[in-house]
Amino acid sequence: MTKIDDIYTAIRDTDRPEVFITLRPEADVASDYQQSVASDGPLAGAILAVKDNVDVAGLPTTAACPGYAYVPDADAPTVAALRKAGAVVIGKTNLDQFATGLVGTRSPYGAVRDSRRTDRISGGSSSGSAVAVALGFADIAIGTDTAGSGRVPAGLQGIVGVKPTVGAISTDGIVPACADYDVPTIFAADLELANLATAVMAQATGERPFDSESRFAAPEAPIIAVPADLPELDDRWRDAFREAVAAAEAAGFTIKTVDLTPFLAAARLLYDDALVSQRYDAVGEFIDSAADSDDIGLDPVVAQIVSKASGYTAVDLLRARRRLAELRALAMEQWGDATALMVPTAPFHPRIDEVVADPIGVNSRMGTYTNFCNLFDLCGLAVPAGVVDEADGTRSEFGITLLAGAHEDAVLIDLARRLRVSAADSQHGASAPTWPERVAPSVELAVFGAHMAGGPLTHELSDRGARWGREVRTAPSYRLVALDTTPPKPGLIRDLDAGRVIEGESWVLSPAALGEFLAALPQPMMLGKVELADGSWVVGFGCDAQAGESGRPLDRTRW
Amino acid sequence: MTKIDDIYTAIRDTDRPEVFITLRPEADVASDYQQSVASDGPLAGAILAVKDNVDVAGLPTTAACPGYAYVPDADAPTVAALRKAGAVVIGKTNLDQFATGLVGTRSPYGAVRDSRRTDRISGGSSSGSAVAVALGFADIAIGTDTAGSGRVPAGLQGIVGVKPTVGAISTDGIVPACADYDVPTIFAADLELANLATAVMAQATGERPFDSESRFAAPEAPIIAVPADLPELDDRWRDAFREAVAAAEAAGFTIKTVDLTPFLAAARLLYDDALVSQRYDAVGEFIDSAADSDDIGLDPVVAQIVSKASGYTAVDLLRARRRLAELRALAMEQWGDATALMVPTAPFHPRIDEVVADPIGVNSRMGTYTNFCNLFDLCGLAVPAGVVDEADGTRSEFGITLLAGAHEDAVLIDLARRLRVSAADSQHGASAPTWPERVAPSVELAVFGAHMAGGPLTHELSDRGARWGREVRTAPSYRLVALDTTPPKPGLIRDLDAGRVIEGESWVLSPAALGEFLAALPQPMMLGKVELADGSWVVGFGCDAQAGESGRPLDRTRW
Repeated sequence: MTKIDDIYTAIRDTDRPEVFITLRPEADVASDYQQSVASDGPLAGAILAVKDNVDVAGLPTTAACPGYAYVPDADAPTVAALRKAGAVVIGKTNLDQFATGLVGTRSPYGAVRDSRRTDRISGGSSSGSAVAVALGFADIAIGTDTAGSGRVPAGLQGIVGVKPTVGAISTDGIVPACADYDVPTIFAADLELANLATAVMAQATGERPFDSESRFAAPEAPIIAVPADLPELDDRWRDAFREAVAAAEAAGFTIKTVDLTPFLAAARLLYDDALVSQRYDAVGEFIDSAADSDDIGLDPVVAQIVSKASGYTAVDLLRARRRLAELRALAMEQWGDATALMVPTAPFHPRIDEVVADPIGVNSRMGTYTNFCNLFDLCGLAVPAGVVDEADGTRSEFGITLLAGAHEDAVLIDLARRLRVSAADSQHGASAPTWPERVAPSVELAVFGAHMAGGPLTHELSDRGARWGREVRTAPSYRLVALDTTPPKPGLIRDLDAGRVIEGESWVLSPAALGEFLAALPQPMMLGKVELADGSWVVGFGCDAQAGESGRPLDRTRW
Repeated sequence: MTKIDDIYTAIRDTDRPEVFITLRPEADVASDYQQSVASDGPLAGAILAVKDNVDVAGLPTTAACPGYAYVPDADAPTVAALRKAGAVVIGKTNLDQFATGLVGTRSPYGAVRDSRRTDRISGGSSSGSAVAVALGFADIAIGTDTAGSGRVPAGLQGIVGVKPTVGAISTDGIVPACADYDVPTIFAADLELANLATAVMAQATGERPFDSESRFAAPEAPIIAVPADLPELDDRWRDAFREAVAAAEAAGFTIKTVDLTPFLAAARLLYDDALVSQRYDAVGEFIDSAADSDDIGLDPVVAQIVSKASGYTAVDLLRARRRLAELRALAMEQWGDATALMVPTAPFHPRIDEVVADPIGVNSRMGTYTNFCNLFDLCGLAVPAGVVDEADGTRSEFGITLLAGAHEDAVLIDLARRLRVSAADSQHGASAPTWPERVAPSVELAVFGAHMAGGPLTHELSDRGARWGREVRTAPSYRLVALDTTPPKPGLIRDLDAGRVIEGESWVLSPAALGEFLAALPQPMMLGKVELADGSWVVGFGCDAQAGESGRPLDRTRW
């Protein structure tokens, strides 16, 4: 119970009334928490804040517009999935009204202030969710992201923001912003917790499922694209990005530069062209009908953006989408063979008065590195990457975002893990499941020789998106021989009479990757079922009988 | 040269000036043909007619509107691919103007008449292409299909029409109709030739590539959905459809009925709602600017349809697309576990005077069973299925269309082959490559026991979309043992000293299917490389050494 006490004490002491639009009574949350910690859900005891455009049964959904509020009967599938896994909802958080904005100031419930420097913005539109996590009011928080709303506030608050592939997670029970480009997101201070929570949501609610080609990890030698130019960053922020690039090189990643021009051009279609009509489609009629009422709580900037979105024709929309497809093709030419694109999450951290002075302009600059992402069907992962010592003596959180193609979500998690671990750590130390593995078919493959981590053939697995799984031990019914190949390869031979336990490791990969691996496997190596020490059977290596017989017996339990 | 002589003589004798908008000079075609037959292209000697909304270098593209005509410098990629494979272009064929129509009468170059009964329509919009094939003026013809233009004329002319998955074949160099739903198609009298030509186009030009999950064949026990009701069919046409359903049952297919309501509702979005705005986007400004000129050759019905398509807003279009997504979800609920949906291709065969009397209404009824297909991202295959003895004493060609999900194109070819072959024939007799195999990664798997065609485990392959490949013989270095399993399984053991040739067969499957097959394979069976009689190596069956040793040696070359 201490945890709930601590959180509510912190909420009372911190004087941040703008973070929550609805905060549940402490006693209710404490009671739910007690039940949760007694359960065995993967998120047992995790406190969850929910952006107030996402339905939680019995609590009002306002989308930060009091006049729009309704009380849903049912949780959004995202919320239901996290609750089922043990998460306890603490309340509904503030946002840029109708999720329209990247600043966090466009709300009649108050501008959400930065968690550390109260004269600065939180970033938005998932402002309250990000600050709730940054201030320790919640372990995880649901946001939404259309043009950066799940990444910009993560970057400014120095936390992790997972922006999954659009469609991989249900948007049911969520007030749309630009429906074709909306996706729920997760904030957490910790990468592994964020990953786990996103996995839970994706497993329960995916509408555009992962397939048997999914990659579970980045290749062994990733190529990271970075922008040749860094618009909107001052020298201090550029230095922070350069350090992040240097860290990526130190982690063994190859860096290449790309021209961001087509990426930046796409962003303009989202706000300054017919793509914005989806915002009118979502809430425009409500705004038009309510525009005369003073008590509806419309944010004037949001109302202006949405209202003007009604003026486009169907042909305008078709042409904007065609232009988007052309820009995407140009962008993908730039992208080429890169595993991911690395960009600053936000280009600077403005003060609230700067936003007040130029509400559209500052907002637009905040989205420089996020707006194009969902338009190009990329997934994104925003992670902290150091701090910037500002000229005014304060420190800003600096964040980078890793972007990859649709359904490459696990590749980003893997890259971020490798960026975090020091060179001394094993790159295969992180064995927590990545979330596509939880939602896509996967196979475990036991290897006993040159394919083990660090071996000369490891790349045959990792280049196919395989993820290191675990150390494995066979049942005591196998022996190893050195096959008469060049170089000698290990032959694992089942021998119920004179066998012993052999040590290897397993890799997790997609069925397609396994099929491709098998198709490329040279004679005399074979794949079939191998019995493990716990009596289970997994796909693993063997060899043909004659090659095994002519091999040199090894008195070893490990190659 | 006789073939070209024969064709041009037939063209002259048949008095069908409406079929070709541009017919190449006989001498040019004869010269190209001479070169073609001397080549070794897969389509060497095939005569190709091209719908006149598809670019052929040096010939005018009119889209059946003389005032719109331009002469392209380059072939459309579809045309280039077929030419590279040996096909010889004979000319450009008439169509419903701007591919707007299913009747074949909407053209200033003349209404295209049925190949057999000249008072009836050809069907459209790919009218000239279908009739050119039906009359033997061409072996294959390119059409396009948005709402049925590649199927309806195939059905009425009694030929095969392949309508691939949208995006699987490039639409570059083609005048758009409704750009998001357009796809090039192939007509031929023969299923295998149609399949081969589509394969050639897809391999050269695919924009939305097949992936490593592609299925190469239908499952062993397909489930075919058929409509519970058959709107627009009279009793004679209903009887013809019932006979087609009976033939499917005789081929071993399981029939289930579905409610077509959501399918039919989607069709209305294409013409009576904002989806039609893509037609304005494509040619609307041209039509508006030309509407006052008499000599531009606008078809009044087409001009009316396209012009009124400008009146929709972006929000109208968004709502129509959302409604389409809802209808698709309802339709897919109906579809359930069906392998394919079988429908009549066209519901009746109208006379030209009936179309003149009610140009929009008859056209709309013609599309009853085709309009929803591309909207729901289905692929389709129209094949002849008998004739209808009409009340007036004439006979109409009756056709069915098989529809399946995106990228299941090979499944349809496989189903159509099985419908054609008599019960006495082997279902695995057809070994011509299906076209997804040519464009998607595939693996050959050699099997030597219960997985061979007709065996008790064949379904483990065919249910994963594997296609029977060929008979195979190993190098003379293998022997068979009967493993100590229940029931006994064959163990193929490599034995360079005492081996012999073992006979089996191969199956072609996707890497994902191979990975799934391996993951499900029980000990002691293993997969690795097997050497064939010609010295090549393919993935094939083996077994673990100890099981092989304890097996009972067989003095046989085949299980």
